[in-house]
Amino acid sequence: MNKQQLIEQIQQKKSFLCVGLDTDINKIPQHLLDADDPVFEFNKQIIDKTAQYAVAYKPNTAFYEVYGAKGWQSLEKTVQYIKANYPEVFIIADAKRGDIGNTSANYAKAFFNTLKADALTVAPYMGKDSVEPFLGFEDKWVILLALTSNKGSQDFQYLNIGSQTLYKQVLQTATTWASSDKMMFVVGATHPEELGEIRKMLPDYFFLVPGVGAQGGDLQAVAKHGLNKECGLLVNSSRGIIYASTGLDFADRAAEEAQKLQEQMSNLL
Amino acid sequence: MNKQQLIEQIQQKKSFLCVGLDTDINKIPQHLLDADDPVFEFNKQIIDKTAQYAVAYKPNTAFYEVYGAKGWQSLEKTVQYIKANYPEVFIIADAKRGDIGNTSANYAKAFFNTLKADALTVAPYMGKDSVEPFLGFEDKWVILLALTSNKGSQDFQYLNIGSQTLYKQVLQTATTWASSDKMMFVVGATHPEELGEIRKMLPDYFFLVPGVGAQGGDLQAVAKHGLNKECGLLVNSSRGIIYASTGLDFADRAAEEAQKLQEQMSNLL
Repeated sequence: MNKQQLIEQIQQKKSFLCVGLDTDINKIPQHLLDADDPVFEFNKQIIDKTAQYAVAYKPNTAFYEVYGAKGWQSLEKTVQYIKANYPEVFIIADAKRGDIGNTSANYAKAFFNTLKADALTVAPYMGKDSVEPFLGFEDKWVILLALTSNKGSQDFQYLNIGSQTLYKQVLQTATTWASSDKMMFVVGATHPEELGEIRKMLPDYFFLVPGVGAQGGDLQAVAKHGLNKECGLLVNSSRGIIYASTGLDFADRAAEEAQKLQEQMSNLL
Repeated sequence: MNKQQLIEQIQQKKSFLCVGLDTDINKIPQHLLDADDPVFEFNKQIIDKTAQYAVAYKPNTAFYEVYGAKGWQSLEKTVQYIKANYPEVFIIADAKRGDIGNTSANYAKAFFNTLKADALTVAPYMGKDSVEPFLGFEDKWVILLALTSNKGSQDFQYLNIGSQTLYKQVLQTATTWASSDKMMFVVGATHPEELGEIRKMLPDYFFLVPGVGAQGGDLQAVAKHGLNKECGLLVNSSRGIIYASTGLDFADRAAEEAQKLQEQMSNLL
């Protein structure tokens, strides 16, 4: 998917919602456990009910790898299902990969050709030649970790390199590797004012913003500081949507939560 | 596997060789392509011929994920085969994972419980709470990226944080998270004198050293600067061993290359 197609979808759905498919077999409704593939069955029903409110889905690979090859099958079926039924939707494999060139090239093939995701989250620590192999695929995206929303972001991301923090250095350096047509950045939502600083540095890039709860408490601040003229944001919610209920109504309740966020987003756009 | 068991294996085999299983279907001998699972068949034969010279195997997950769920099956079969036939061998999943706590906990289960690897390479960028979930498994290891051997290591790892480089800061901070009984570090071999500085900083930790070719050109320098009283090194060779030949003799030629390195290591220990 190219940038223009993503922007058109955002305009049509009046949404910049990404639904995180962190599907945990211990948290899904009991009645699904008899299905052949409970993880896929859960995802399928969540997707069918939320796709009108969401522009992106973000399966997190850890939640699939935990079941080994079987989990990868659930992941593959999930991506295939979205592609077949909601071809307009942007699919982010949240895998945080990154390695030396030869290895990154294989990860790129794994996620862009084999899995057919549109985008992959990538870790920056190993530098340019660890990221470049992901950039050679038409209409595929790198979403590079810059500022994450966890407490551990303090350990290295906030260290000062000369007069600026490491995460800003990562942003600055990485923008020399790819334009806003091929690259986005993960920018944690815990400090919306920083999002504003980053938006000033990078007016054109999309940011994937995790850490916004189902309540949408921070959504307004994120939008205030992060929106650009083309939207420029994908705001993710995982647990707040997919685990809104653990009963028979789980997919309907997920849809309600997704709709609430979509309506707020519609007002903010 | 605990540290004492690893050290005993090193002493018995007079080797600190790690064989990298970066198995690429485009590079393995033609005659294996008719097998049910050519990747596993290749690994099996390589392992059978090299296990007497190697203390560790390091499958690189990218080379398996590129085939999706099928690739994960090859990976699982490979680890199971080593565990069943060479239980003394240390198995490193070279996956460079790392995410927020909840997600890292799932990666830890994926690699330590489901796959049953002994160790996992982990990326440091997201800080302490992204690494901690990997540390709660008995006799399982985190091998944290510190200094990598690729050109892109210059981009961030060598940036100065105050008076020292980021990679040294990562080493220093991470040693407060875990002792040398639970954590090792990836330290690239391209600058052996730096390995010496790092050894002075961390006298007790094991280092996983990639980037030493089949020729063993740098092995002497790596040993000179990196060995400690318990060895403290796992030196990896991938392509130089596993692709020594693409003919019918591939496993025998791999064994020869592994033996050459083992003999050099024996002299160095």
